[in-house]
Order: sequence, then structure tokens, then C-alpha cells
Amino acid sequence: MIKTVLVGLVCGAVALTLGVLIGHFGITNNSSSAPSWINDIGKDVDENIVEKFLSEVDRLNIEENLRELTKVPHLATSEGDEQTVQFMLKRWQDPESGLDKAWREEYEVYLSFPDAKNPNKVTVVSSSDTVLYTLREKEKNYTKDQEDPDIVQPYAAYSPAGQPKGKLVYANQGKPSDYELLNRTVDLRGTIAITRYGGAGRGAKAINAAPYGVIGVLVYTDPLDINDGLMSDINETYPHSWYLPPSGVERGAFGSQYGDMLTPYLAAKEETYRIPFKNVTGVPPIPIQPIGFEDAYRLICELGGEGAPTEWKGAFNCTYNFGGPGFKPESTQNDVIKNSSNVMGVIRGSVEPDRYVIYGNHRDSWVHGAIDPSSGTSVMLELSRVLGKMVKEGKWRPRRSIIFGSWGAEEFGLIGSAEYTEQYFTMLSERTIAYINVDIAVFANATLRASAMPELHIEKLTNELIRLSVQTRILVGYLSGAGSDYAPFVHYLGIASMDLSYTYDRSKTNARIYPAYHTAYDTFHYASNFIDPGFFSHQAVARTAGNVLIRLADSLVLPLNCSDYAESLEDYLNKAVDLYQEKLSSRNISMGRSLLEFKSTFNLKNETPLKVRRINDQLMLLDRAFLNPLAFPDKYAYRHVIWASSSANVGTFPGLADAFAKADSSGQTGDWEKVHHHMSMLSQAIDGAAGMLENVI
Amino acid sequence: MIKTVLVGLVCGAVALTLGVLIGHFGITNNSSSAPSWINDIGKDVDENIVEKFLSEVDRLNIEENLRELTKVPHLATSEGDEQTVQFMLKRWQDPESGLDKAWREEYEVYLSFPDAKNPNKVTVVSSSDTVLYTLREKEKNYTKDQEDPDIVQPYAAYSPAGQPKGKLVYANQGKPSDYELLNRTVDLRGTIAITRYGGAGRGAKAINAAPYGVIGVLVYTDPLDINDGLMSDINETYPHSWYLPPSGVERGAFGSQYGDMLTPYLAAKEETYRIPFKNVTGVPPIPIQPIGFEDAYRLICELGGEGAPTEWKGAFNCTYNFGGPGFKPESTQNDVIKNSSNVMGVIRGSVEPDRYVIYGNHRDSWVHGAIDPSSGTSVMLELSRVLGKMVKEGKWRPRRSIIFGSWGAEEFGLIGSAEYTEQYFTMLSERTIAYINVDIAVFANATLRASAMPELHIEKLTNELIRLSVQTRILVGYLSGAGSDYAPFVHYLGIASMDLSYTYDRSKTNARIYPAYHTAYDTFHYASNFIDPGFFSHQAVARTAGNVLIRLADSLVLPLNCSDYAESLEDYLNKAVDLYQEKLSSRNISMGRSLLEFKSTFNLKNETPLKVRRINDQLMLLDRAFLNPLAFPDKYAYRHVIWASSSANVGTFPGLADAFAKADSSGQTGDWEKVHHHMSMLSQAIDGAAGMLENVI
Repeated sequence: MIKTVLVGLVCGAVALTLGVLIGHFGITNNSSSAPSWINDIGKDVDENIVEKFLSEVDRLNIEENLRELTKVPHLATSEGDEQTVQFMLKRWQDPESGLDKAWREEYEVYLSFPDAKNPNKVTVVSSSDTVLYTLREKEKNYTKDQEDPDIVQPYAAYSPAGQPKGKLVYANQGKPSDYELLNRTVDLRGTIAITRYGGAGRGAKAINAAPYGVIGVLVYTDPLDINDGLMSDINETYPHSWYLPPSGVERGAFGSQYGDMLTPYLAAKEETYRIPFKNVTGVPPIPIQPIGFEDAYRLICELGGEGAPTEWKGAFNCTYNFGGPGFKPESTQNDVIKNSSNVMGVIRGSVEPDRYVIYGNHRDSWVHGAIDPSSGTSVMLELSRVLGKMVKEGKWRPRRSIIFGSWGAEEFGLIGSAEYTEQYFTMLSERTIAYINVDIAVFANATLRASAMPELHIEKLTNELIRLSVQTRILVGYLSGAGSDYAPFVHYLGIASMDLSYTYDRSKTNARIYPAYHTAYDTFHYASNFIDPGFFSHQAVARTAGNVLIRLADSLVLPLNCSDYAESLEDYLNKAVDLYQEKLSSRNISMGRSLLEFKSTFNLKNETPLKVRRINDQLMLLDRAFLNPLAFPDKYAYRHVIWASSSANVGTFPGLADAFAKADSSGQTGDWEKVHHHMSMLSQAIDGAAGMLENVI
Repeated sequence: MIKTVLVGLVCGAVALTLGVLIGHFGITNNSSSAPSWINDIGKDVDENIVEKFLSEVDRLNIEENLRELTKVPHLATSEGDEQTVQFMLKRWQDPESGLDKAWREEYEVYLSFPDAKNPNKVTVVSSSDTVLYTLREKEKNYTKDQEDPDIVQPYAAYSPAGQPKGKLVYANQGKPSDYELLNRTVDLRGTIAITRYGGAGRGAKAINAAPYGVIGVLVYTDPLDINDGLMSDINETYPHSWYLPPSGVERGAFGSQYGDMLTPYLAAKEETYRIPFKNVTGVPPIPIQPIGFEDAYRLICELGGEGAPTEWKGAFNCTYNFGGPGFKPESTQNDVIKNSSNVMGVIRGSVEPDRYVIYGNHRDSWVHGAIDPSSGTSVMLELSRVLGKMVKEGKWRPRRSIIFGSWGAEEFGLIGSAEYTEQYFTMLSERTIAYINVDIAVFANATLRASAMPELHIEKLTNELIRLSVQTRILVGYLSGAGSDYAPFVHYLGIASMDLSYTYDRSKTNARIYPAYHTAYDTFHYASNFIDPGFFSHQAVARTAGNVLIRLADSLVLPLNCSDYAESLEDYLNKAVDLYQEKLSSRNISMGRSLLEFKSTFNLKNETPLKVRRINDQLMLLDRAFLNPLAFPDKYAYRHVIWASSSANVGTFPGLADAFAKADSSGQTGDWEKVHHHMSMLSQAIDGAAGMLENVI
């Protein structure tokens, strides 16, 4: 049933073809009577251009970009966001920039904000409603940055407003198993649960709680998970180190789908039909509020009841118990439809303008967003400056078009990029070679990480980095989940994508993520002092991203490595056979294994530009064949049968793994039928992808 | 909200570009040092080749093909069907044929047949179950053809087996309104309804009946609708004329979706998951059986009860009353999964082998199927013979690949073509220029009819025909519905398609269709005596189809006329504004009208082969942008928002028309929301299509 493919031969032949093509075009190039375009049409990557790019990327420019971008908070659709729109437009529309055009794309999207005049409050009250203790409403000031009146109060976007009041209980990470365990000891009906970040998605902590009768949820970051246990702002945490101060709070979107929630599969334009909010799924059904660990410490250490299990324990120097006193969070936040902008810039391709290489990052932040996302935007601006300069000076123009996207409202669920893919669905599907995402450019300055679909695990990239001595250690992994704007390109459009960043040395810290993430401490001061002093890692990311971009835009034959894809599929298949074959056979669901071997029959004589294009189209479209809009009926805009996220997380085909886990647990015939059905979709997709690489007729 | 496009300018520029391109390539062609491929890459249609093709098409070959194809009945998956598979394979695999390859593609599909040993029976019985009268089980013999033991008994494919017994009532055409009217006078519970063909789909006559408690349905062809009222086989009907003999019965598939019912969106391979039959929708819930008008006459003229309305009356010389005596149809037919084959043939393209022009027809028939479908298959075989010969002689090879498809099991719901589009979805979507369908090549020999999407309303075609004096009258219309194998190409894949045939002079006959349609009288004798003596019309269809095929395969710039598309959309828009704007405005659904005018900015200097390809891709992919898999949630595999079938049938956007009609009738808010939702999908699709024609960046 499941088939996989060995495409090594066809892939190997591409490199050989490349050599012959260059030679062939090279000869005609010397003839004065050949058509004038023949010079350009057969051109490959010019290594001198790559060198020039690499040498011109300047870390000090990146530093200046970051300083400029982080002057004020720039929450999506705020005045500060508009300032960054203007800044990007000014840079890209400058006639000296070398970009061919730049413009703004607007969408009217569904967002969620607290009411600044009537902020969310959390208080501890006595049984007679006397306020015993009020939690902080904003973070403590350490630098002038935290004094800015435009800083948004810590909140959970898309949490419903409400005033639940109830007994407080500690529910660990808010996973289904946590509530289940807790509920054995404590009657959860009418309680407020305090949970820590990690283990479950943000909104899931409330979604998992509601079935037990929990009426409100708090979430905080335990020092164990972010600060390696450090708790003091006297000399342990920021501004003395990169660690999170006790009052710091991670904000976030608490919805679980991506894109504008009210306009699924449609660009959110003024007159677009919007589904009623009651039909939106994946949002918290009960109020949830994030708080700092300073307050969480006071709450948790006061809790009575039975002691929680060891693995629930964080870094507080007290017992973590299950339940305690009266308690009242109050949320007044509003949901509104607001105008959010993407800023787009283009360098038009010379030979194949109808083939796009897209490079993007979001622009909006929760507060000043120095790391998330302005580190990436600073890199993008420097990269586009250097490329544009080469165009402006007449030294270079890419073979294919390069599109830059500065997305809006990513923090609310990848909204800007998702709306863009919905609006330009066919055009992007048909013409896009690859999408490169650099969101948080530098999490930490230890290791360069490239997460990508297998065909983008470009060897050249690694070699280049070693040669440049930028970094000898590079992590190359698959791109999964929906953590940044690559998601709509991967899952909805099926476009080969890569996410690039500098990241941690995991042997040196247990921090879930860089500690100032989504707090008021993610500032230029923080970034330049504690994340990447000197901006060397930022520069390395810019160089790497630019190198990838130039090679994708200029290579005569696309540097997409389909034999790596075949290997990945084989790994998945072997894993699936190991895990599932026995049980499936016993239910008469066959899992026959047929390895197709593709013969390379490229005729290497008389190559034409249309033959190169044909091979490139085969490579470009490979991932499109893995799409099936019906493969994940319960997951919005997930269509890629190989890279969809999976709860089973066992390193094989995600939909099969999830369907099998469900059937194996329920034992119901209908669920086993769904396994069979998904296997048929998977098999057809893999056959289809293999077919795209075979001889075209 | 709804936007339409004026693309006249961009389209006009294509012709101009073409001229310049030819000139340009022409010049380089004279240079000996230019690359060798440059000669081919810039070549346009060679009019000498067109002429040669037209002159070599021979009507006598078509006649011989037809004679061979109709020797025995070739019901899908029968022994006779296999003989036609072998015949096609032999012709196309012959090394002398000039085709590059030909092969069989098999699917295991869900079909429905009567049990030959235990045939369906319809009897009139007394209240004590004494048989008073037994209806014919097969058609009367006039030629040896009707003696063939392999002729399938008249039946309704996908009707459930059963033995309903009840009072007979006459229900006109079995439309919802017919049962509604009848039910006012007669209690329909427990009755058998006799209906005539026309007005409602085959299966709909039973689907519409069931809610009233009707337990079985008969369907016959009234002489008024097929024979212009003539009833006698003494000298009025076949074998004396083309009219249907009294015992002739139209067989048919009574399902309403297309493709294999058990494997929606998946190719029906051996191990493919099959949905349980109970989940299949659109099939008759109660037994239904087709009968001849000889028997229908006896039944209807015996009916008592009130007289039926005038418009219910057919050609029988008796009163058509509502209801009468006891009655018992008995159906024992079985549903089975059987192996059905497509036969495929290919002429590989020389310059752009990865661009496909597909030409197809089904091969299976109900009985001998001389007209339906063998007239089309005979044309296809002659056309492929002449094209293959030119290839074999080294005189020609098409620029793009030509694929021939001889589809299986069309009569059961376009199964072979639908499975093919499901199996090769991405490949066909990405590479197919156009699909040309010739099913019934000649309905009658009065007028050539080309039904096509607007971009295939090729002016050249008409001019060519006039020049050839083949026919000065030509009907050009839109391609709608799902009457033949173009449906999966149009609705599921969004590929520009054309259906070609010779047809009636409507001023000369009222026949619903040619009278022997789906009966045992659709034989070579019938075709050669009464439909197209001399096979001149067959020859004209072969010439026309070949002309279209060569131009699509060889034109440097595709002869797809996007300005006609723009006009069609404008007509639709104007109609929609007329019909709906007022009511929609009153419900705050805006229908703003923005006509986008595309500027042509083609740079006509320094054209390159990749620029030609770019323009061609824009044209090829135009229709793909109109697809939305969510636009018709209730219609299987309908995704094209412009050409889907519509019950409202008012000459505007089909989904909008149907949604509006439903909302206007129900008045429910949810239905008005669906109108708005569909308008947003429509608007996004039209914008997307317009975007595909704009400058690529």
C-alpha cells in the first residue's frame, strides 16, 4: 500500500546535466550570430557575486537596523507597527535601494487586545470578597524601555473576557494527563488552575481544563524552565544576565489555528465573508491570564492540599501543593477587527521572472521585540540592501525573481503570511521555488540551525559555511509544526521551505527559549548585551540566508536535492513498517512495500532552455504532489501529508501515526477504516510525487 | 465584491508577440553557429502539416473502424469490452502506428449489473398475486445484432435490488414538482410510479419519489420526446427510420456523482480504501427499472384516477391518468467491483514534452454502442492513425506531447476518466494545456457543435471550417454539466476543455437525443443507414478535432483566447448585478463592481524561449485559478467556480445563483451568509485568475 521511491539516479543526473548545459551554452555564447539572449539564458551562479555579497554584509548595519526597529513597541496594528511599516517602505522604495518595487498589502484581521483603560486584573480575595492581594498588572522597569506607555499589558490574546472566581489549584503544565491526575484528588469544578508554560500549547491549557469544570486558568513561566532555576533580580536575572526577571511575563496568542480566524481559506479583505465567532474552534473556552513567576511564587507557595508529584515541581523553594484559597482573575479584553499590513519588496528576475524565491519574516512584536522578530527583520534589511546595491550598480540581477515579505500580525497566529498565501494561492503555488524564513535570527550565539524540507538540505550551504569559517557546527533538521511564517508555505502551499537561526548550546542551558521571549525585556539593550554582542551571529545568519537565496535564484538547475527526500521517505516508511505492519495485517489492511527505482534517461545532447526549465519544474513541483486537501479533515490548512504536525510524534508519516494511535486506542472499526483511508491518500500522494520526477511522458 | 476583468489588452498583445517571435527565431535560424536546438524551439504551426492532416483523414477508414468496434456488445468490463481494449492496443502498439507508446491502465471499480440467469422482471398482478401481464425482458429483434446473447437486459445501474408491489401511478418526469402535484390527489405511500425520461436526472426520479413513500419507479421514453410522436414499427420506427422501436429501452447509470463511488478523490486501485456503500450518496433509494413505450402504453392507458395535467401528456392515444392497478417489479441485480481499463497512447512532444494536449473518449457502451461511443472512438483511431503516420514518416512531431485516452466504464459515471484525473492529479494539473473530448461524434448530420470554455472558442477553428467548406454552420457554446468525460477535466482539474460533435437541426426534430441512444438498436446498421450515411459528418469531426489538436500542440504561443473569457465573465457579472444586487444590498452584502484593466507591458525586444513559455503558462493556468475545493461542499469533485452545474440555470455564476435561489426561498440568515461566503470565494478566484494574466512580477 505505502510505496516509497528511490530517486538517487534522477537526482544524480541533474548535476551531470548541469555541467553539460554550462558547456553547451558556453560555446554558443562565443558566437556573435547567436541570439543576444542566449548569453543570459544559460548562465549559472556566479561565485564572484556570492563572494561579493558575503563580503558586503555588515554586522554594524544590522545593529543599526535593530536599534531603529526597536525604538518603540510595535504590537500588530499599533502606531508603533505603522512606524515600522513606514520604515520598511522608505528603505525598499528608495530609488537607491535597487529594488524594483515595494508596496503595502492590507488585510482586516481579527485580533484581541486588553483594554488599556480597564486592564485585566488578578486578585486574591477572602470568602467575603475582601481583596487580600493584587497581582502585578505590568512588568518592573529596569531600563527606560519598560516605561513606554504603549507597552501592552501581559495578556492572553483570544482568551474570552470574564470574571471567574474560585479556589486556586496547581495543574502543572495543563496537559490532559495533568488535569486527569489532579482531578483524582481535587474536585476541579469551579476552580481556577495555575499552570506553567511548556508541555502543552498555550490555548490548550484552557481547552484541556474546561471539561473538568475549571472556570479560569493562570499561566506563568517557572524559573526552572527558563532561568535554569535562578530567581533573583538582584544579580541573577536581567539586567545582570539574559535570565527573565521575576515580573517578566510571556504574552502570546492562545488560538490554535493559523491565519485570520474569521476568514478561513479567504484573504481577509473589507468585504470578505466572516464566519460567526461561535464557529471558531481552537480558542480558550474560559478566561486565561499569563503572570510573572514573582506572583506565581506567592500563589503556589500558599497552596494547601496534597503535595504534587515530583515531576510537577519547578524551581520555587516551597512545596508545590494541589489546591488553596479564594481567587479572582478579571479580564476585560476585547476582540476587534483591525487593519494589518504586509510590506512587500521585489527584485525582478532577468531570465525567469515568473519563478519566485520568497524570503520573509514578520514585523510585529509583543513589545519592543528586539529578538522576536526584529533580529530577523534587521537581517532581512541588510540582506536586501546588499542585493539591491548590486542590482543598482548594474553588477547583478537574479535569474529568478526575489520577493521579500515583511508580514504583519504573526504573533496573533501567522496572520499576514497566511492571508498572503490565501490571496495569491494559485500564483504562488505555480511559481514559487522556495520560501526562506528568518524570524528570530539569533536565539543565542552558539550554533547555526537550518530546519528545512529535505530537498533544501543543500550541501553547498554547509560547505560554504565551513569555507567561510562562519561556523563549523551546523544543525540541519526537518521543518515541522507551525512556529513561524513558514507554516502556510509548507502546509498550505507545499513549497520547499527553510527556517534559519542561530541558537543555543543545549549543553549549557535548559531555558525553554531565550528568557526575555514575549516580555517587555526583549529590547535592543537585551539583544546587544546578552544575545549577540557585536552582532556576529546576526551577520552569519544574513550571510547564510543570502547565500541560499542567491543560489536558489541564480542556479541554472535548481539546487534542490531530491535524493535526500527519497531517503527521508524511506526512513518514514521503515519506521511505519516497524510500528504498524503487524497490527494492520491482522486487520487485513495491507502495507505492501514497493520501492520504485527511477531510471535516469536524460538525453544529455542538444539541451535546450526548455529542458532545463522542465527539470527545474519537476523539482519545484515535487512537494506540491504531496498535498491533499482532505488528508487532515480536523486540521485547518494542513494539506502536506509528509510534514504535517502529529501528536504521535514517532518519526513517520504524521497522519498515519495519528490515525493509528487513535484506532489502536479506541479499537473502533471506524477508526481503523480511517487508518486505511489515510494510507490510501498517502500512497497516492507518494506515487504522485514520484511520478513528477519520472520522465515527463 | 465581485470583480471581473478586462483582459483584451494582454490578449491582443499575444498575437503581436507571436509575430515578432517568429521573425526573431527565423533570423537566428540562418546562422550556422547558433545552437542546433534553436531551429525547433522557435517553430510555430506549419500550415502544410495541417493541410496534410486534413487531406489524409479518410471517412472510409472511420467506417471500417466503426464496423470493427461494434461487432459485439462491449459493456464496461465485459468480454466485448476486453476485445475493444485489445483492438485499441493492437492499433496503437503497432510499430508502424507512429505512436511512441501505448498501454493499459486498470482500476477496480464499483459497477452494477443484472443477473443474466435471474433477470429483472416487471409484472402486473391481481390482488391475489395472479400474474395478469408480464412486461418484456428484452428488446425485439430486427437485425441479427439484437440476437447477441451478450446483450445486457435493459436495467438501471445502481438501482437497489428488491420486490416492491403496489398501485401504479403516473408521475410525469419524476421532478420534485411532479410528485408534489400528484401527492395532492393520490396518497403515494406504497405506490409504484411510472415516469418518462426527461426533466430530471435518471436517478433523481427515484430520489425525488422516496420521500413521498413511493416504493418503486418505472421509467420509459415517451414517443413524444424521442420519436416526434411516432409509435409504429410497421413503417415509422427503426428499421424503417432512425426512430425508436416500441420495445427499445434506454439503459443508463442512475447514480448522480461521477467517478468510482467507493473511492472518492482516490484512484480505485486494488488496495485503495473503499467507503462503505451506505455512505454513498446520490443513488436511488428504491428500485427503478426502465421499460419500452410499448409496455408503458399498456400500463398508462389502463390507469384510472383523475386525469393528469395537459403538460404531463405524451404521445399515447389515451388519457394519461394518475393511478391504477396492482403491480410488481422485481429486481435482482448485483453490485460488483470489477476491473476496468483505460487504454492510453502517446505521441511525445519534441520541444515541450512536459506540456500535454489530451484527446479522449470512452470505449464502453451499453450494447453495441455504434453511436455512443464508437462513433467517437472510430474518429479517434483515424485521427491517431494520420498523426502517427506523419510522425512515422519523419515529416512531423508535435512541439508538445499528445496523449490519447480511451476511457473505460464511462456509462457508469465517467469512471475511467475520473480515476485517471484522481491518480495523476498533480501531473495533469501542472502540465495539461487542454482536453478535447469526442464522445458521440455524430448525433445527426446537420450542424457541427463545439462546446468549450471561452478560451477555446478559437477563431481559427471556425475560419478553417469555412475555408474547408466542411460546414458553414457551427454552433459554439459553453461546456457545462457532466455529460461526458470532459467533466473531471473541467470541474476537478480546471483544464480548458472542448467537446465536439455533429448534431441536429432543431427545426427538424424534437427528439431528446438520437432515438436509439442506450438501446439495442444503436448498431453499425443504424449508424450507417440513419445517422451518417457515407460517414461525411464523422470525417468532418475528425478533421476539426485534428485541426484543434495540431494547433494546440504546435502553436508557439498557445491559441487560447483570454479576451473571450473576460467577456464571458462580464456577461455573468452583469447578469448577477441585474438579478441580485438589490436584494443583496438590502441585506448589507455588498456587490461592488470593479473592472480591472490590464496593461500590456510585454517587452517585444529580445524575446526568449522562456518568455514564450511564461506567456503560455499564464494562459494554460488561467482556469486553475478558478478552482476552489470548498466552493461546492455538496457537489462531489466540483471545484470550478465559473462552470459548475447549477440548478438555478440563469446564465450567471453557478454557485452564486444556487446559493441566492436557496436563500431567497428559505429567507434564513444562515443561507444568506452562504451567499456572502460564496461571493467571497468567487471574488477571490476571479482576482486570482486576473492575477495570473498580469505581469508575472
